[in-house]
Amino acid sequence: MDGRSAATRVDGDDDELLPLRRLEISDHAKGFVDLLSQLSPSSTPLSDADFRARFADLAALGDDHLIVVCEDRVSGRIVATGCVFVERKFLRGAGKVGHIEDVVVDASARGRHLGQRVVRYLTDYAKAAGCYKVILDCSIELRSFYEKCGFKEKDIQMALYF
Amino acid sequence: MDGRSAATRVDGDDDELLPLRRLEISDHAKGFVDLLSQLSPSSTPLSDADFRARFADLAALGDDHLIVVCEDRVSGRIVATGCVFVERKFLRGAGKVGHIEDVVVDASARGRHLGQRVVRYLTDYAKAAGCYKVILDCSIELRSFYEKCGFKEKDIQMALYF
Repeated sequence: MDGRSAATRVDGDDDELLPLRRLEISDHAKGFVDLLSQLSPSSTPLSDADFRARFADLAALGDDHLIVVCEDRVSGRIVATGCVFVERKFLRGAGKVGHIEDVVVDASARGRHLGQRVVRYLTDYAKAAGCYKVILDCSIELRSFYEKCGFKEKDIQMALYF
Repeated sequence: MDGRSAATRVDGDDDELLPLRRLEISDHAKGFVDLLSQLSPSSTPLSDADFRARFADLAALGDDHLIVVCEDRVSGRIVATGCVFVERKFLRGAGKVGHIEDVVVDASARGRHLGQRVVRYLTDYAKAAGCYKVILDCSIELRSFYEKCGFKEKDIQMALYF
């Protein structure tokens, strides 16, 4: 995207110029996977067939999985995304938990509260889906960002890489 | 796929008296939900219909969701459990991540390495399912336990309760 055009925009216009919506198959050509690669250095481009296959896997989860994207209407590129999946449990009276994953805002589109809008969209979705809580893992550097979104630090994340 | 074969390797007599296997509907009557209530004070008993409904929800996820239980053959009670679900991503070349949740060992059965056996079973399962990593959230007090299971502290968990 063109950072100069972004600079000329007024803040209040962002809802119209940068609307949030569900991921669509056509977003592959709009840089969705490129955007994710800003999140994980090990990300690699996907073939169109692999993209469609993964899209179908996730669509089969129905309302229990949502990927939201923000398309810049000027550049036609995906500049922010995040996802939430709903985990169905036996505890808490067969309760549900929302897991937020893979929130990223394009480096050129930062400073416009897009991240907060994405996180709010996902938390609202989890709440409407009947989750009793929504959780996510992040680096310590992102704690204050998520605190602004209403989250509190609770536990630690442990990882085992294969 | 079958992750069970991985768990049958484990040492000692406990293998026979305390075998690990997938959750079955009949485990409701063997105290499975009671065991989970040791994990979350807000857990409540489930009716048989609610248990079956949740069981069916999870069975529909196929190999992407596994609940393992340990039934004490002497008492006929479920004394340990844990679950893992496989998240399918677009990043890392359409990679997969295993999420471990709800690991608990009955207070009366601790000190017999059941927790480690459960975690090993779940991590073996995630690896065999093609995950590039397996992650979990826990309190700081459990860090050394999970380090013994091969995990490393990585990030922080943030939570928002509704």
